[in-house]
Amino acid sequence: MSTPYSYEQLYNFSRTIFIKIGCNETDAVTATKALLSADLRGVDSHGVARLSGYIRLWETERVNAKPAIKMIHETPSTGVIDGDRGLGLVVAPFAMQVAIEKARAVGTGWVSVKNSNHFGIAGHHAMMALEHDMIGIAMTNASALVAPTFSKERLLGTNPIAVAIPAGKEPAFVADFATTTAANGKLEILQRKNLEVPGGWVLTKDGIPSNNANEMKAGGLLLPLGGDKEHGSHKGYALGAIVDIFSAILSGANYGPWVPPFPAYIPMPENMPGEGIGHFFGVMRIDAFRKADEFKEHMDKWITRFRQAKTIAGQEKVIIPGDPEREMEVERMLNGIPLLPVVVADLEALSNKFKVAF
Amino acid sequence: MSTPYSYEQLYNFSRTIFIKIGCNETDAVTATKALLSADLRGVDSHGVARLSGYIRLWETERVNAKPAIKMIHETPSTGVIDGDRGLGLVVAPFAMQVAIEKARAVGTGWVSVKNSNHFGIAGHHAMMALEHDMIGIAMTNASALVAPTFSKERLLGTNPIAVAIPAGKEPAFVADFATTTAANGKLEILQRKNLEVPGGWVLTKDGIPSNNANEMKAGGLLLPLGGDKEHGSHKGYALGAIVDIFSAILSGANYGPWVPPFPAYIPMPENMPGEGIGHFFGVMRIDAFRKADEFKEHMDKWITRFRQAKTIAGQEKVIIPGDPEREMEVERMLNGIPLLPVVVADLEALSNKFKVAF
Repeated sequence: MSTPYSYEQLYNFSRTIFIKIGCNETDAVTATKALLSADLRGVDSHGVARLSGYIRLWETERVNAKPAIKMIHETPSTGVIDGDRGLGLVVAPFAMQVAIEKARAVGTGWVSVKNSNHFGIAGHHAMMALEHDMIGIAMTNASALVAPTFSKERLLGTNPIAVAIPAGKEPAFVADFATTTAANGKLEILQRKNLEVPGGWVLTKDGIPSNNANEMKAGGLLLPLGGDKEHGSHKGYALGAIVDIFSAILSGANYGPWVPPFPAYIPMPENMPGEGIGHFFGVMRIDAFRKADEFKEHMDKWITRFRQAKTIAGQEKVIIPGDPEREMEVERMLNGIPLLPVVVADLEALSNKFKVAF
Repeated sequence: MSTPYSYEQLYNFSRTIFIKIGCNETDAVTATKALLSADLRGVDSHGVARLSGYIRLWETERVNAKPAIKMIHETPSTGVIDGDRGLGLVVAPFAMQVAIEKARAVGTGWVSVKNSNHFGIAGHHAMMALEHDMIGIAMTNASALVAPTFSKERLLGTNPIAVAIPAGKEPAFVADFATTTAANGKLEILQRKNLEVPGGWVLTKDGIPSNNANEMKAGGLLLPLGGDKEHGSHKGYALGAIVDIFSAILSGANYGPWVPPFPAYIPMPENMPGEGIGHFFGVMRIDAFRKADEFKEHMDKWITRFRQAKTIAGQEKVIIPGDPEREMEVERMLNGIPLLPVVVADLEALSNKFKVAF
């Protein structure tokens, strides 16, 4: 890790790069906030480390920097949005805003999105609902890396789910997780340390259990949450499948093995059945169910009880979903965001290419 | 396993027992269909094996056989229902029907339920949406048996999630799973065979990993899907928590360690913060997003592609969620439902007590 970079520096740089590729000021700010929320929250694999990847998608015309995002079908509580190949970092907040407005009007809003691209971290979008005293849900499909239970083919993405729930005096409950045993980013950490991965994370390309942290580079497969059938991987597979269907089959995006890859150098799948990648968003107004104050009091009670739970040996406390990311955000806002040398080199290359000071 | 019993025999018996405790004819039929769908679908732990348990809850006045189930709060797309201590087998279909009607009106319907009881299998309720070309979602909390990651206290139930999605020529996609590595019923199967349970299923009451199939009887803890932190148990814990919050904190039911136990002989928790147990239901009309025919064509394509996936050694095919249960239902409707001697004895005891021929 290098010296930490300040949020401001990375913010100004990323925003300027997005403007350089043609984003308007509003979209550049929206995209930058979504991108950097990953760095702040400690999901380093999804932050500025991916900025050059987004730019390469723009260079190969898979990303449209000036999308005309539009609603193509709607009812009072639902909508389908065509992202017009925009950055997912921009399309997703647009769709969440639609869901929030629908929830304001009729209690809940549910929006499926096609023709989009990678949207960063799901949690950032889900959390947009919190300030309105609403529950936010965000999910997305992604290019196939994951083998359904009993399969040795890559048919699902890591298909994350995020759910953000307001509390009162306690901080919000924010769950944000890939539907695999471990996300790709965790494998990369072990690669760098030259360590083996635990069982239940990956298979070789021939479908044999592996402990090799480099297995994915050799055509290996990530495993659904649970790892194998005996440990409930059919549940992780079902969750990933539900994310795929809600995100893409409801909207008309690509699904399963046909989801476009993030790296621009990988060719697009053949015979794609839809447009772009798909997302799904849900928003529920708390007071569409119950007075918000009452709800929040009980959330505080729930959180307090779980936080006080007796722990197993070697552990100090039970974690409420969202705790580590929130603490990381405070820490990094104060002390800066550490970047790996390879990420710094990537940003410097962008700096040279676009003549933007880093 | 004893000789199989016909669906008709078990149906007539269960229906009559529900009438004997005071259910009206409609409720008795609704409850019986929900109960027996578990036996038909092969979820033996949740079918007639539990009939005597429901009756004991009625005997101790935890179940009200003549509930005045009512909506206590609503918006166009949401509702909160007070189950009036009714059988969950009756309250849940009532709530799903409300969600279906709301989906018909405004695209989706979302209903949280308090003051209910055990509702049988989640999948049965979720599947109510299918005939209307709607997606159905059902979840419920349950009394605490599960340790959140790092905890050695029972704070969550097995909190299942079911999602039923219509297809075209292919059968519907129906996922229905506990948010634990393994459900209690699977432990019981291994107990009877005198086998050990795999790692990642249970802890001793002191929070130490165990392979003892009888661990739960000694105060042990079920583990969230994932098993331990290294295998993603914080994701299973988050899923169980979300089910708990949607089912109980949105509605005003009990949550966490305060959810009432199913066995009537176990005393109620002290200082309960809500009423009864909670459920959560969601229904989304397909054509609130996209023409139903288009959606179903793509579902067929999705299902066909996954079914044809290449398999790992030793496995013949990749399973689509709902396949095994649907096949079991056909088989058992034809050849009858096998019951364990202990279940038969239980039903015979009910037969004697209520003077109903078995």
